[in-house]
Amino acid sequence: MSLTVVGSIAFDAVETEAGKRDRLLGGAAVHFSLASSFLTETRVVGPVGDDFGEAEYAVLHDRGVVTDDVEHVPGGKTFFWAGRYERDVNIRHTLQTDLNVFEHFEPKLSDASRAAETLFLANIQPDLQRAVREQCDQARFTALDTMNLWIDIAHDSLVKTIGMVDCLIVNDSEVKQLTDEPNLVRAARAVMELGPRVVVVKQGEYGSAMYTGDGAFGLPSYPTADVIDPTGAGDTFAGGFMGYVAAHADEPITDELLRRAMAYGTALASFNVEAFGTERMQTLTSAEVHERVAELQRVTVFDATPVPLRI
Amino acid sequence: MSLTVVGSIAFDAVETEAGKRDRLLGGAAVHFSLASSFLTETRVVGPVGDDFGEAEYAVLHDRGVVTDDVEHVPGGKTFFWAGRYERDVNIRHTLQTDLNVFEHFEPKLSDASRAAETLFLANIQPDLQRAVREQCDQARFTALDTMNLWIDIAHDSLVKTIGMVDCLIVNDSEVKQLTDEPNLVRAARAVMELGPRVVVVKQGEYGSAMYTGDGAFGLPSYPTADVIDPTGAGDTFAGGFMGYVAAHADEPITDELLRRAMAYGTALASFNVEAFGTERMQTLTSAEVHERVAELQRVTVFDATPVPLRI
Repeated sequence: MSLTVVGSIAFDAVETEAGKRDRLLGGAAVHFSLASSFLTETRVVGPVGDDFGEAEYAVLHDRGVVTDDVEHVPGGKTFFWAGRYERDVNIRHTLQTDLNVFEHFEPKLSDASRAAETLFLANIQPDLQRAVREQCDQARFTALDTMNLWIDIAHDSLVKTIGMVDCLIVNDSEVKQLTDEPNLVRAARAVMELGPRVVVVKQGEYGSAMYTGDGAFGLPSYPTADVIDPTGAGDTFAGGFMGYVAAHADEPITDELLRRAMAYGTALASFNVEAFGTERMQTLTSAEVHERVAELQRVTVFDATPVPLRI
Repeated sequence: MSLTVVGSIAFDAVETEAGKRDRLLGGAAVHFSLASSFLTETRVVGPVGDDFGEAEYAVLHDRGVVTDDVEHVPGGKTFFWAGRYERDVNIRHTLQTDLNVFEHFEPKLSDASRAAETLFLANIQPDLQRAVREQCDQARFTALDTMNLWIDIAHDSLVKTIGMVDCLIVNDSEVKQLTDEPNLVRAARAVMELGPRVVVVKQGEYGSAMYTGDGAFGLPSYPTADVIDPTGAGDTFAGGFMGYVAAHADEPITDELLRRAMAYGTALASFNVEAFGTERMQTLTSAEVHERVAELQRVTVFDATPVPLRI
């Protein structure tokens, strides 16, 4: 039932049509663990600086996230990202990135984190991801996210790391870039040839897709008219997905299980975008999550009974 | 059970990674009717020139398409379009457009075409679409497609025409441009305020979505690794969708019916892209269509049973 996530813990400054915030709790590992905490106990591994205080820890602890492996770097400052979204939130401009304590981050896992049955390597340098993967040798399901930067500047290391996980979870533009294959089905096949048996492709407003040896699964996003801040939606999705897998450690990891996991990831991500930073996730309830998963199914069902055709 | 489509009949020259063809039967009304013919008798209204011969008519007649209202313009040449797709077939370059007989096209509908219960106005000048709509005053379900050109240069006429149909079927970039609204849910609502009660948004490789007063429906595209020629995929989708509605004239037009219609449209469109021009549709069988609709359902099903959550 145990889940470990390694990745960024951050402060974000975000500007969207809906408003502007100068200092939001953020980072991939934070968004991930707030989502996964709905499903399973989650241990976060990542660095913070002196500016990361009680209030920030409280957000994680209130959701039962285990922060024993959050590394406090004395004298350091927490990773900072500033960005602006256009009215079309699909268009994002990065205004500032201060790596701060993240620049010299070397993940240190406690025995408890290393013993995780489920491991998520959020988007960090692929050498570091691989070092963590090697430490977690008892994991029964491992996944990683990455970004265009690492595909560009650390391609070989990334490919090597991808070869050591069960599942790749990336955006559609990233999987196309990684494999140099514009067709998603072919891109997914190319990833499977590198090692992973599961490829999950995040498609933003269009939803997500999963490819395995048994076939493809497609899920639309939850239709929402109110996107306040899309930051962290992908990490929240991954948190719901991996949390679901971790919570069902007594079941074989079938396509059927992974599809249910994607539905929970999609539902959780749809909440995350409804407010700035982690605000919506902090007030979210189980009943709301259940209701949205049920709505997601209502959004997707159709009757495929054959009808008479003329030809 | 009757369906009339008004739109272009064309010769296309197409170049893709898979090869090059100099003269393919094409045009929105052709792609539409070859798909809709699987479901219901379809009457095509559109102009052709002297170069449109027996072989082209045969493709339509072999599928039971009624061509009584295909208007032969003596001395004229059929509409011609040439385009090139990049390796990423989402990127298309138009190389040549010769309107030819289409330039002075004024749709002339026979009594039989005017009596259609179901009417599709393919992408033509919105004044012409409106003139046709006014003639078909017995239609119980009408839909139209359009393009960025008309949104740019004939916006007011287009809005007036949209106000006279039950359903808008457009690409996602078009519905966003038309409504100046980057969020799809809001864009669909804005269209509904213009008149239509159904908005169908084509999203290419990502599938399609439908918005009505009763809510949203999302359907992924059929996952295909072999896109040979995407020309006409959207019109084929519309043909399957409208053909399904026309074939079920004895049922009230509910969301549930329209969802089934979208599945047939999606399945038919997935075949169309598997070969150049109309080639694949000419050999397609009922059994293949049924099998793909069933596969499309397998691609989309998931179990939404609530699971215990921790928060």
